[in-house]
Amino acid sequence: MKSNRKEIHVEWGDCDPAGIVYYPRFFEYFDACTNALFESVGFRKAEMLKAYGLLGIPMIDTRAQFYAPASFGETVRIETRIVEWGRSSFQVEHKLYNREVLAAECSEKRVWTVRDSLAHNGMRSEPIPGEVKARFG
Amino acid sequence: MKSNRKEIHVEWGDCDPAGIVYYPRFFEYFDACTNALFESVGFRKAEMLKAYGLLGIPMIDTRAQFYAPASFGETVRIETRIVEWGRSSFQVEHKLYNREVLAAECSEKRVWTVRDSLAHNGMRSEPIPGEVKARFG
Amino acid sequence: MKSNRKEIHVEWGDCDPAGIVYYPRFFEYFDACTNALFESVGFRKAEMLKAYGLLGIPMIDTRAQFYAPASFGETVRIETRIVEWGRSSFQVEHKLYNREVLAAECSEKRVWTVRDSLAHNGMRSEPIPGEVKARFG
Amino acid sequence: MKSNRKEIHVEWGDCDPAGIVYYPRFFEYFDACTNALFESVGFRKAEMLKAYGLLGIPMIDTRAQFYAPASFGETVRIETRIVEWGRSSFQVEHKLYNREVLAAECSEKRVWTVRDSLAHNGMRSEPIPGEVKARFG
Repeated sequence: MKSNRKEIHVEWGDCDPAGIVYYPRFFEYFDACTNALFESVGFRKAEMLKAYGLLGIPMIDTRAQFYAPASFGETVRIETRIVEWGRSSFQVEHKLYNREVLAAECSEKRVWTVRDSLAHNGMRSEPIPGEVKARFG
Repeated sequence: MKSNRKEIHVEWGDCDPAGIVYYPRFFEYFDACTNALFESVGFRKAEMLKAYGLLGIPMIDTRAQFYAPASFGETVRIETRIVEWGRSSFQVEHKLYNREVLAAECSEKRVWTVRDSLAHNGMRSEPIPGEVKARFG
Repeated sequence: MKSNRKEIHVEWGDCDPAGIVYYPRFFEYFDACTNALFESVGFRKAEMLKAYGLLGIPMIDTRAQFYAPASFGETVRIETRIVEWGRSSFQVEHKLYNREVLAAECSEKRVWTVRDSLAHNGMRSEPIPGEVKARFG
Repeated sequence: MKSNRKEIHVEWGDCDPAGIVYYPRFFEYFDACTNALFESVGFRKAEMLKAYGLLGIPMIDTRAQFYAPASFGETVRIETRIVEWGRSSFQVEHKLYNREVLAAECSEKRVWTVRDSLAHNGMRSEPIPGEVKARFG
């Protein structure tokens, strides 16, 4: 299935007093990579929101394992792909490389979530449109 | 084993364009809660770093499941406890409640990591001091 | 005029590799303090958005001066007040104290901004309701 | 004097519930741009810290004016230059463009700060090395 590669330059402000990336920032990286994956097949997030009444694709389950640290000034490379489509959810996998070494892995389960003023919290899940899945081949 | 409870006020800046907490911020909350747990038994992080030559307690594996969103202006309550001590690693568990509903759960595996100028990356794991474990009862 | 005081515990994740608060986090603190000031007079942000069709109170001009650093584990105290009301904008001032020493000061100019689907960017400024100003005495 | 241009892709996670960049993130962008400016003349931050015993170049005074919002999916362009060198401080200026429109401006005053275990807070300012200034022409 379609995958995408994104490079991210680790910034000073992404790092903690230990001098390494503060781990919640890695989740920001991964989130940016999932959005970039969709953009790579022609679905820019802003347009997807309008086209489908989408609120977003909120996370319901994510796990990350960190094997090696990264520090400011380094550029990490993240490879992202969708590993499974459900009816209204899907699974994403990220592999993050730092100097060609696998430094972190992450799996995500996200839900296709639309605005619904009548629903609890103003949102509800909805089946993922077939045309969206189709773009990922 | 000793647990700790921390309340966090969800800020406008913690939320994304969907109007709900941007999920990497939840990991910031959980990290603050782990530090608060140590502080609750007398180990303030700044002092721990000095006393033990500690670089930090970096994350090596974390998983979070999100059951319900939270939004700005809400105050969430997080209950945190250490569920297992290894030789140089330990497992932490967080339960996050929003208006008395379990809204998220997180498990963490962290490593007791000291500065070592000779080691790769300037850091290495070390057995967790017995007195640290003892404080958690 | 009405002022508000808020204490913020500096977290590990707020600090950079120099071991001190990464300065953009101070702006997050100040933003939280402005919201807390409104909440202190009965205007919770979520309710204000609904009641007035408010998009937010975006920043148009802010300046901060930093006199002393703050580090993780410290609790800073911030005193916030509105120093001037304009027609559709207002000025806020923050003083941040760390261990009773003035460590930072910030001034903000914000604009009362409502949603307007016909306007450029979907938003426009609007006169601040008199009842809002009145609450600050 | 030497200037640098950097493009930043605005991420979903940089935006607040109003759907626009949460303004403290702009300060993260500007900080990244100052670091990129130094890197553009051969001073990578990690190497500068080692070479000069530098703790960092902390901010002491910054002001930003925001003229137009930016939103996720947009790519902003920031032009950064040093406008004045003092003995141990220097002034930086950023101009941020969104779709060729000047959307924000920022000025910064930073201090060349070295580690000093005997000094208050473990840090003190020091004259900026002539070779550093020289690289900016």
